[in-house]
Amino acid sequence: MRLEIDDLVARIERLREYLTIKSLYWDFDANEFVWLDTRQIPWSEVYVRTRDYRRVAQAIKDMEIRGAPAIGISAAFGMALAAMYSRATSVDALLSDLSQAREVLASTRPTAFNLFWALDRSWAAAKRAAEAEKDADAVRASVLREALTMYVEDVESNVNMGRAGSKVIEDGMRIVTHCNTGSLATAGFGTALGVIRYAWLEGKKIKVYADETRPLLQGARLTVWELKKDGIPVTLLVDGASGLLFRRNMADLAIVGADRITLSGHVANKIGTYNLALAANASGRPFYVAAPTSTVQPVEGEDKIVIEERSPDEVTTVLGRLTITVEGVEAFNPAFDITPPELITGIITEKGIATRPYEKSLREMLGLS
Amino acid sequence: MRLEIDDLVARIERLREYLTIKSLYWDFDANEFVWLDTRQIPWSEVYVRTRDYRRVAQAIKDMEIRGAPAIGISAAFGMALAAMYSRATSVDALLSDLSQAREVLASTRPTAFNLFWALDRSWAAAKRAAEAEKDADAVRASVLREALTMYVEDVESNVNMGRAGSKVIEDGMRIVTHCNTGSLATAGFGTALGVIRYAWLEGKKIKVYADETRPLLQGARLTVWELKKDGIPVTLLVDGASGLLFRRNMADLAIVGADRITLSGHVANKIGTYNLALAANASGRPFYVAAPTSTVQPVEGEDKIVIEERSPDEVTTVLGRLTITVEGVEAFNPAFDITPPELITGIITEKGIATRPYEKSLREMLGLS
Repeated sequence: MRLEIDDLVARIERLREYLTIKSLYWDFDANEFVWLDTRQIPWSEVYVRTRDYRRVAQAIKDMEIRGAPAIGISAAFGMALAAMYSRATSVDALLSDLSQAREVLASTRPTAFNLFWALDRSWAAAKRAAEAEKDADAVRASVLREALTMYVEDVESNVNMGRAGSKVIEDGMRIVTHCNTGSLATAGFGTALGVIRYAWLEGKKIKVYADETRPLLQGARLTVWELKKDGIPVTLLVDGASGLLFRRNMADLAIVGADRITLSGHVANKIGTYNLALAANASGRPFYVAAPTSTVQPVEGEDKIVIEERSPDEVTTVLGRLTITVEGVEAFNPAFDITPPELITGIITEKGIATRPYEKSLREMLGLS
Repeated sequence: MRLEIDDLVARIERLREYLTIKSLYWDFDANEFVWLDTRQIPWSEVYVRTRDYRRVAQAIKDMEIRGAPAIGISAAFGMALAAMYSRATSVDALLSDLSQAREVLASTRPTAFNLFWALDRSWAAAKRAAEAEKDADAVRASVLREALTMYVEDVESNVNMGRAGSKVIEDGMRIVTHCNTGSLATAGFGTALGVIRYAWLEGKKIKVYADETRPLLQGARLTVWELKKDGIPVTLLVDGASGLLFRRNMADLAIVGADRITLSGHVANKIGTYNLALAANASGRPFYVAAPTSTVQPVEGEDKIVIEERSPDEVTTVLGRLTITVEGVEAFNPAFDITPPELITGIITEKGIATRPYEKSLREMLGLS
C-alpha cells in the first residue's frame, strides 16, 4: 500500500522546533496513534498508543484527550486507524467499517463542535477517494492523509497565530493566562500558549501568571506543566487573585483562548475568562483572545451561545478526589462564560489580529460580505 | 468567688434566636471554654472544651478557630481561663500569670489585628480591677466579665448590622457572598452572613450563591455548611463563575465582609473579593460590605494596607490534602485584596449604612472630625 505522504512528513519535520511537547502524534514506523494521557498530568507522564479506533474513542470520552482542536484531530486519527486496520477488501465494506467508526467516535463528546467538523472532513475524504479510485487501499491512504493534514494544519495555524500575536508582547512583559491552551489542547504548540511560546522563542524575557482554573484545574495541572517543560517562568495563582495582580501592577496583559467566537466579537471560553477580562480592563491593561478563525461562528450576539452546564460534582469535589463541601449541595457549574467585545483588545488568529469593531474586522478576515 | 455576671447572662439569653450555630461559647456550669473545630467542617462536627489557655492558643494558631472577631474573643476567653485556673492567691502573682498567658496568646497569629485589641482590653480590665479592689478573685471575675462582654457585644453588633443591612435585601433576592463571614468567623450570627440571616429571619425568601473561595475554600466548607444548618437555600460556585452569574441575570446583589476598611473606603477582604466586586459592578448590581465600625482604621488610601502573602502550599495543594500542580512551582498567594470605594454601594455597620463619599460618611459614623 503506497501512502504518498512524504510531503506531509516534510511539513511536520519543518515544525520540529515548535513541537517541544508532543501531546499526540502518528507513529509512522508502527502505524499507531499515540497520545499523552492528560488526566495524569502533572502526577505522571503516560503515553498511550493504539491501533484500535475504539481506544481513541474511549480516550476522548474519558478526557485523556481534551481541548477542542486535540479532540477533533484525535478523532481523525481514530478514523485513520479504523481504515488502516479494517479487514475489508472492497471499497464498500471499508466504507461500512468507517461509517461505524464515525458513529462510535461521534458519540464520545456530543457537544464538541470540532469533533463533528473533523469526522465530516475525514468521511468526505474517504468518499472522494472511493469515487475517484474505487480501491480500498486508496481510501485507507486518503483517510490517513486527511488526518495528517488536519494535524499539520493545526500546528502551522498555531505557529502563524503565535507569530502574529507575539507582536503585542514586549520584552520583559508579565502575562496572565487562563485554562490550558497549549500543546495539551491542540495538535501541538497551542493558541494563547502558542503566542506566549512564540514570544519566548523570539528571545523575549517574559513571565507567565497561570490562573489555576477551577473547577478542573487545567491551569494548575497542564499549563504549569507545559511551561515548566519549556523553561518559561511561571507563577500559579487562584482565579480570584487576578484582580489584585493587575491592581498592584504585577501583570502587563492577559491572553486567553476561545471555544467559540461570534461575529459580534463575543467570546465563549472556559469559565473564569470573563472575570479575568474584567480584572485586566479595570486596571487599563490589554486583554487578548487567541484562536484560529475556524472558531468564529457565523452568528452575532451572546444569546446565540448555549452554555453547557456540567455535573455539580466537579464543583463539590476537587477532581473527584476530595470532597470540599456539604454532601448534596446544589452547584452552578457552567463550562464556559462569555466575554463581550468591549473588554477585548484584539482577537489573534492565524491570519493576523482583528480589532474593534469586530463585526467588520472578523467579516473581512473570514471573507464574508 | 462572686462573678456578678447575671446581666451578661441575661443579654446572651436575649440573643438566643440569633445563635442557631454556637461556634464558640463559655460553659457557665463547667467554667470551660468551648469551640467548634472549623478545620473539620464540613466533614465532621467536633466541639473542643478546655480549662487550659494554652489549648486555646493552639486552637488559634492551628486555625481550629478563624475569622478576626472569633480569634479576638477566643483570646479573651483564653485570658479568662488563665485567670480562673491560676493558682495565684495574690493580685501580683495573678497579674504575672496573666501577663504570661497574654504573651502566649499574642504569639499565635502575629498579624491578627483583633487578637491584640482583645488581649489589650482583657489586660486593661485585669489592671483596673487589681487597682480598684486589690483582690485576686475580683481580678478573675473582671477578666471573665470582659471576655463575656466582648462576646455579647460582638453578637449584638452583628444583629444590629443584620437589621441595618437587611433593608437592602428584598423578598426573592439572589445574593452572592464570598468566604465565610458567619457564626464560624465571629462570636455568632455573622457580618455579611448575619445580614443574610437577618433577612431570612424576617421571612424574606432569599437564595444565596456562595463563592467557594480558593485557596482555603471557606465558602465551600463553612458558608455552605452554615446556610444548610439554617435551611437557607444555597448554591455553590467556583470563584471564576461570578461574572457569568451576574451577566446572565441570575443574581441581584453581592455582600461580603471586611478585614480592614480605610477612611477612604478601601476594603481589604479575602482574596477574590475585588473580582466579585468587578463582576457585580459590570452588570450594574449593588455590591455591599458588612463589617463592624471597629474594622475601620484611621488611615486613608489603599497603599496604607500591607497585604500578607501566605505559603505557596495553600495554592499548590487543596487544603494540604491533594497536590494539584508541578512540584516546586512558584505561587502568588495574597491573603486578601483591596476593593476601591467606587465599586462599593454601601458599607453596612452596626450603626447603619455608610455610602459614598466614605471619607465623609465613615468619619461621621466614627465621630471623627
